[in-house]
Amino acid sequence: MKYLGCAYYPEYWGPERVATDAKLMRAAGINLTRIGEFAWARMEPADGTFTFDWLHAAVDTLGEHGIEVMLCTPTPTPPAWLTFAHPDTLLVNADGRRLDHGSRRHYCYTSETYRRFSKRIVAKLAAEFARHRNVVAWQIDNEPDLIETGICHCENCQQEFRTWLKSRYGSLAELNQRWGTGFWTVDYSDWQQVRLARANHAPSRQLDSRRFANEKLSDFVLFQSELLKQQRADWRVSTNLNGEVFTSLDYFKLFDRLDVACKDLYFDICTMDVNAMIMEQFRSFKPGQKYWVTETGAGMCGCGRPAHPGQFRAWLWSSFAHGGDAHVVFRWRTCLSGQEQELEGMLEHSGVPGHRYKAIQKAFLEMREQSAKLRDLPLPETAVAFVHDYDVAFTYQSTGIGTLVPYEKNFTALHREFYRRNVRTALVPPTADLSPYRLVVLPSLVMINPTLAERLKEFVAGGGVVFAQGQLGLRDANANYMRHRGPDQLQDLFGVLINGGMYLHSCVGVDETSASRTPFTVKLAGKLARGTAAVWLGDLEAQDCRVLLKVQEDTYAGQPAITEKKTDKGLAIYSAAAKLDDRLVGKLVDYALGKAGVAAVKGIPEHVEVIRRGTRTFVINHRAKPVQVKVAKKRLRLPAYGVAVVSGS
Amino acid sequence: MKYLGCAYYPEYWGPERVATDAKLMRAAGINLTRIGEFAWARMEPADGTFTFDWLHAAVDTLGEHGIEVMLCTPTPTPPAWLTFAHPDTLLVNADGRRLDHGSRRHYCYTSETYRRFSKRIVAKLAAEFARHRNVVAWQIDNEPDLIETGICHCENCQQEFRTWLKSRYGSLAELNQRWGTGFWTVDYSDWQQVRLARANHAPSRQLDSRRFANEKLSDFVLFQSELLKQQRADWRVSTNLNGEVFTSLDYFKLFDRLDVACKDLYFDICTMDVNAMIMEQFRSFKPGQKYWVTETGAGMCGCGRPAHPGQFRAWLWSSFAHGGDAHVVFRWRTCLSGQEQELEGMLEHSGVPGHRYKAIQKAFLEMREQSAKLRDLPLPETAVAFVHDYDVAFTYQSTGIGTLVPYEKNFTALHREFYRRNVRTALVPPTADLSPYRLVVLPSLVMINPTLAERLKEFVAGGGVVFAQGQLGLRDANANYMRHRGPDQLQDLFGVLINGGMYLHSCVGVDETSASRTPFTVKLAGKLARGTAAVWLGDLEAQDCRVLLKVQEDTYAGQPAITEKKTDKGLAIYSAAAKLDDRLVGKLVDYALGKAGVAAVKGIPEHVEVIRRGTRTFVINHRAKPVQVKVAKKRLRLPAYGVAVVSGS
Amino acid sequence: MKYLGCAYYPEYWGPERVATDAKLMRAAGINLTRIGEFAWARMEPADGTFTFDWLHAAVDTLGEHGIEVMLCTPTPTPPAWLTFAHPDTLLVNADGRRLDHGSRRHYCYTSETYRRFSKRIVAKLAAEFARHRNVVAWQIDNEPDLIETGICHCENCQQEFRTWLKSRYGSLAELNQRWGTGFWTVDYSDWQQVRLARANHAPSRQLDSRRFANEKLSDFVLFQSELLKQQRADWRVSTNLNGEVFTSLDYFKLFDRLDVACKDLYFDICTMDVNAMIMEQFRSFKPGQKYWVTETGAGMCGCGRPAHPGQFRAWLWSSFAHGGDAHVVFRWRTCLSGQEQELEGMLEHSGVPGHRYKAIQKAFLEMREQSAKLRDLPLPETAVAFVHDYDVAFTYQSTGIGTLVPYEKNFTALHREFYRRNVRTALVPPTADLSPYRLVVLPSLVMINPTLAERLKEFVAGGGVVFAQGQLGLRDANANYMRHRGPDQLQDLFGVLINGGMYLHSCVGVDETSASRTPFTVKLAGKLARGTAAVWLGDLEAQDCRVLLKVQEDTYAGQPAITEKKTDKGLAIYSAAAKLDDRLVGKLVDYALGKAGVAAVKGIPEHVEVIRRGTRTFVINHRAKPVQVKVAKKRLRLPAYGVAVVSGS
Repeated sequence: MKYLGCAYYPEYWGPERVATDAKLMRAAGINLTRIGEFAWARMEPADGTFTFDWLHAAVDTLGEHGIEVMLCTPTPTPPAWLTFAHPDTLLVNADGRRLDHGSRRHYCYTSETYRRFSKRIVAKLAAEFARHRNVVAWQIDNEPDLIETGICHCENCQQEFRTWLKSRYGSLAELNQRWGTGFWTVDYSDWQQVRLARANHAPSRQLDSRRFANEKLSDFVLFQSELLKQQRADWRVSTNLNGEVFTSLDYFKLFDRLDVACKDLYFDICTMDVNAMIMEQFRSFKPGQKYWVTETGAGMCGCGRPAHPGQFRAWLWSSFAHGGDAHVVFRWRTCLSGQEQELEGMLEHSGVPGHRYKAIQKAFLEMREQSAKLRDLPLPETAVAFVHDYDVAFTYQSTGIGTLVPYEKNFTALHREFYRRNVRTALVPPTADLSPYRLVVLPSLVMINPTLAERLKEFVAGGGVVFAQGQLGLRDANANYMRHRGPDQLQDLFGVLINGGMYLHSCVGVDETSASRTPFTVKLAGKLARGTAAVWLGDLEAQDCRVLLKVQEDTYAGQPAITEKKTDKGLAIYSAAAKLDDRLVGKLVDYALGKAGVAAVKGIPEHVEVIRRGTRTFVINHRAKPVQVKVAKKRLRLPAYGVAVVSGS
Repeated sequence: MKYLGCAYYPEYWGPERVATDAKLMRAAGINLTRIGEFAWARMEPADGTFTFDWLHAAVDTLGEHGIEVMLCTPTPTPPAWLTFAHPDTLLVNADGRRLDHGSRRHYCYTSETYRRFSKRIVAKLAAEFARHRNVVAWQIDNEPDLIETGICHCENCQQEFRTWLKSRYGSLAELNQRWGTGFWTVDYSDWQQVRLARANHAPSRQLDSRRFANEKLSDFVLFQSELLKQQRADWRVSTNLNGEVFTSLDYFKLFDRLDVACKDLYFDICTMDVNAMIMEQFRSFKPGQKYWVTETGAGMCGCGRPAHPGQFRAWLWSSFAHGGDAHVVFRWRTCLSGQEQELEGMLEHSGVPGHRYKAIQKAFLEMREQSAKLRDLPLPETAVAFVHDYDVAFTYQSTGIGTLVPYEKNFTALHREFYRRNVRTALVPPTADLSPYRLVVLPSLVMINPTLAERLKEFVAGGGVVFAQGQLGLRDANANYMRHRGPDQLQDLFGVLINGGMYLHSCVGVDETSASRTPFTVKLAGKLARGTAAVWLGDLEAQDCRVLLKVQEDTYAGQPAITEKKTDKGLAIYSAAAKLDDRLVGKLVDYALGKAGVAAVKGIPEHVEVIRRGTRTFVINHRAKPVQVKVAKKRLRLPAYGVAVVSGS
Repeated sequence: MKYLGCAYYPEYWGPERVATDAKLMRAAGINLTRIGEFAWARMEPADGTFTFDWLHAAVDTLGEHGIEVMLCTPTPTPPAWLTFAHPDTLLVNADGRRLDHGSRRHYCYTSETYRRFSKRIVAKLAAEFARHRNVVAWQIDNEPDLIETGICHCENCQQEFRTWLKSRYGSLAELNQRWGTGFWTVDYSDWQQVRLARANHAPSRQLDSRRFANEKLSDFVLFQSELLKQQRADWRVSTNLNGEVFTSLDYFKLFDRLDVACKDLYFDICTMDVNAMIMEQFRSFKPGQKYWVTETGAGMCGCGRPAHPGQFRAWLWSSFAHGGDAHVVFRWRTCLSGQEQELEGMLEHSGVPGHRYKAIQKAFLEMREQSAKLRDLPLPETAVAFVHDYDVAFTYQSTGIGTLVPYEKNFTALHREFYRRNVRTALVPPTADLSPYRLVVLPSLVMINPTLAERLKEFVAGGGVVFAQGQLGLRDANANYMRHRGPDQLQDLFGVLINGGMYLHSCVGVDETSASRTPFTVKLAGKLARGTAAVWLGDLEAQDCRVLLKVQEDTYAGQPAITEKKTDKGLAIYSAAAKLDDRLVGKLVDYALGKAGVAAVKGIPEHVEVIRRGTRTFVINHRAKPVQVKVAKKRLRLPAYGVAVVSGS
């Protein structure tokens, strides 16, 4: 890895401590610190009064110890003087309450006032720090998303929303038509009547509200990027994204205009299959490039126990193997005060290196030594692409169906079958070039982007295999269902028509007061075994396809549930169930991989990762117990959280 | 059934589609559509500009296909222009937030402005459509209740509430006395101090707030009824009630002034015993008349799975057998956009008939054929009446006791024992004529209406059997407990005094940190077996009665728990426990039925309904499995969801 | 006991009923009534109009029946006319909503207006009732706490908070430093920016907000005390504290300036171990004095089932044995109306004596007879003191850690081991004189008061045993962690350094999606057995101590977990785990008791209390079943809820 680092707060610990810290960092193998994302009030303690001395000194001292710096713009935490003098800079939540000082991300991302102050501090920072050679990268803001404080509903946002809608739809007549206002006749007759959606409003209005907020917040990030790039074009400028990767900002669009994909990944929040998926996602944002983990736990509170020291190492190697090029620990030292004081740093409160320091130091020093010879290995080969469309994610968030047909859960469950087989995947946007892949997976792609439709056809014509699951091509770009039968634009590709669908859950049975889901029993025509479907099942009409699986249940008996259509060279498989049981979906994945000629690595215990990169294979045991595996024709015995790098594949 | 129908939205699907739809409807056996309940903005797109052409055309086209129309007044969804120009028409919730455009039922039912606009549109509609012969019925508003958006707390409502209280109580002194303001001395000394209750306020204040809102919203419905009747007296005018039948509006009073009892009944929300109870309730609102199901699921989302096609038929026949004369499916076609888009129609999004259409078509056509010969059968005989008093329901909602002594749950559990025995019941108001019945059941009747008291005495004197359970006659008309011992006005009838009562639940035991309810063990003096009591047990003093059951538990050992008092011809049974175990309450029900000479149909599996109507007996299997039953001396084998109509009883 | 009493509401029941009630009270052994805490509107029905006649009459009538009176100031429930004319007297909650009339405790405790009106009514009451000989005590307000309605956030409180902070810290610079505003740089640059904390704000800001509110509300109580004492110095003046003893007001400071410790203790809310701890706490507030139970259930609703009649007696005797000198039942008669109408009184609604009256009467008459000879016994000997610091309690409330390291739960669990051994304890403030004790327990004392540090050193030097558990001496007085290693000020006493700590819970395992706590396995060096730790484990460095227990788990293997340091005469034991399993903590408690020479009474079934007072030993069976115990060399057989007083110890 190029960078092993930590988040550092010289504004908190004071200038007199920097040299001591830099020395300890260096001893721990650290060569990057991230600085400044919350330091606005210490950079500009009063309106127009700037104090950068402490920061210059810190950056210099770090540089003297061979440590480079990722500087941050401090916009997540406006100073008290700013929000008190300019309340219009504060976000107003859906209930109309203006947020107040003392937290973070409480700013309005459309406020012109806020942009003016942000511009001044960012431009100043950029100008001031252009001369430091060891400032190599920038993080804009901190974890910009629409989750932590929600969408802003201030009157300025309302007005901007109207402007945005006007430029999108031109007229109110078109807006009414696109939003499908005919049910409950919520028709708008004057632009002033139009406002951002609250939770109980119609899906298309909610979707556009999310899109608007997404664009405006992304724009707030990108406007800062331009300011920085104007100062020095060679800086690597990005932002650190966190949280709900399916439901926050459109990360594809954002990273497209930034230099490196950066992720805050606390490995103990999710199980390892999800972590691996997230790393594959970040690997995909900038094709051919490595990603950075800009925050990871030194030892957490709130999310989980402090990492087993061996576990930190396993996670570090997993990140490296997946294509990580930076691993930045949050945070250097546990803070004594303030919010998030429970998030533990590498150093104790006392500033003394303890367990966490030692575990991280050991792992970092080993990585520095090893990565010299391993860093130039080719990235993992990904012959499989999952299509992830943020409009689809926003749509599931915007409709009542989102709780019944959980998009993220279904996506993750399907991806897990590839993780279990040690098949690496890419997560690509609907506009992606599909030519690098042999298998393309479409999970719950309820909207079909026209570019994607075209590319899928070319892809299959060229011999590719497509595997779609769940709701497919049923909604238009405004999240409205379509009058024609699905899968929209893909009817010929799959050789089926989707007439509608059935929700398979049941809150109430006739004989009992509460019941869980009602699975359908299915049996495969050919090789595949019986299984069950849940959540939702498309009402299929086979046109020009082979039926792999039919419903056995007496009501819908004989109706197709899984189909495939072969072309000269390619294949399009459609499983109409939003969720199949793991065993059955596993068999389908095996089948699709086989047809696509993608090799899986099976016979490996779960949560042992096998990742090939050129001539080497990384084997990482994420389990608390030793395991024996056979990889690259070698028998390996890995201890708990053990890591091995073997030659061959 | 006279009407087999569906909800239809020509304002949504457009005029060009109506003929196609009408044809498909006709083919499905449909002869009624419900139209217009949300179409205000398409009827009056701007203040005073009316556009009824599309609606005239739709009604005409439907008429040409032999389909009649239930028109609706569109007041649940005021147009955007109206609420924006007149914010005083918007409901203000308990937290003081004025609701906003984009939902439904967000209007204030006391607003004079809203009434003015409502009057204009309703009068216009009535005048415009008086000439259409196939407009046969009207629905006012849509599902008026106090649940969906809650009680309005705007300043106009506050003022109206004061006026209402003044006319009810005359003086503040009387108000203070009636509301029992002496505890915490919340005494009012000026009318301006009086406001509608919020959730944490005193029970009597809450009860009057509910009564006030109930009256005002009912009045809003009835004022529309008058407008319509002024136009044509032969229209059948009503409204469709939904939701919480125990806790919403006083349906008895409302239907008393409307032409037909209409219920939105989605059969998959509750188990069949509750559905049957609700149908019996609606059968009871207009004695001697049939009820209408104005909405029922074509295939749901949110509440349950799409009906098994056979299950739709079973529900249809159950509704018919209980006395339904209309069965209107919600909705003709699944909407493409807007709220509730997950509620599936008979047609798919595509407009193509699919599974749901076919299942409903089959059931409807069969019904049309059969009901010709069955429609004139007498209604089911109901020798048993449950007294349901909305003041009691509102009282349980208004007091902390409502969660400890769940009125609706206890009522339903008691009624279930009659359902299990295929004994049909009526649900009657406290002012009902009791002479048609042989057994009258009083579940948790904590307030005794004076009329009821008189009629019960006559009823028993005339040979009737009364069976009361739980809290009985302990509160006055303001939900205050009474100084004298219960059961108020009925001490002589039952020959007991209720000194007070004991709450049988226990949050905390002495030996464990949490415990569930603490049942008392009881043993019957005579024939009945042991059992347990729960929730609440009255502290009884036997006066002039026979004790059927005594408490066995050592503390209260020997205290009466179930008593009966015989008169010359009649009998009054009182079970002092709010809840007995099913087996024991079943034995009591058998006992009471036996004494009343009401025949039960036993030996039938649960959820198989046996309903007698004159010379025919309907047998409906609501189970997913075939059953064998013996009915009217015939052995029947019914498949899953099977229906049979046999001669004899 | 000196007083056996009940809460009485003559303003509710009317003057004509008082004589009847007084007679019935007297017959039940009652010699004290508590009167007036909610009666403001009946004492002052209009601004400046006072009506005390009814109260004079009631007090006189009670006096004639030999019943003394604890009068109350009526400030929890301001009259409607007051809050309507002066809205600034109403509390504003954290969301900015001003509370409204119809509830209680809805006043702002910093409002000058409210204080003016309160002063007038309290001074009037005191002057009016100074002449009644049977008015012997006063209760101020009712259950003052910061829980029921929360902290007030009105603009007056905001201004007062700033004033309070200024006087505490002098300058904004100091405030910023004390609050540790450097993380997220929430620095204040103008006093107007400073406001009371809401839930998501930084811990030090939350802590000071709680301290401020605590001081202001306490001051509101004490200002009333002065008014009363000015009238008659011989009155026993106090207030009745309830609810969350760990999280409400600083009861030590409050009772220090009042005459008697009064507790509202509903025995069926908690299990008996917690009740016993609470009684020991109230015994400790006024050293050497007896406490009063100012409210206890006659038979509850909401909290639990009505007491088994024998159980009321067991609780009464337990209270007596622990040092109670008054036992006041809430309430004389169940109210007919208003809030809390579900709380049952001794009399039924009807005013007729029923089950509850009879059970209480029996217990009270027995107590009156017995207590003549038992009342002068010395109080229970307490050789063990638990240090309880409200700043620590407020700190756990103010930080995210409070949910992970539950202070109250851990405190209670540790105390339970003493209860199980029938070892009586005192709960003392950090400033207490420790010389009366042989063992001092420090549960989760994350802040160390300097006085305590000094006294602990003297105590151990004098031969005392200290036993500390969990987080110890890690935070400064502003709830900030300290730069130096813990335990602050006590490093030498314990001979250890605490470098930091580990959170042992784990939300997420690697092999499963959710996991519970991750216990460490430990083994005792010497006599003690294996066990597990949970929640949090200090990262210890042994300096000058003996290690009793080491961590066995491979990661932290060999690290000390429990240590002791012997001095010439004393001993300091530190268990670094916030929570150990019951068996292990029991062994530690045995060990500490042994070293301190404190005798335990073992071999007694759980929830059978053995309490020694001089020459007598009280044995109380809180179980629903008979038990056999050997106490004071006698074999006793106690029935369910049985009580025995035996000679000897």
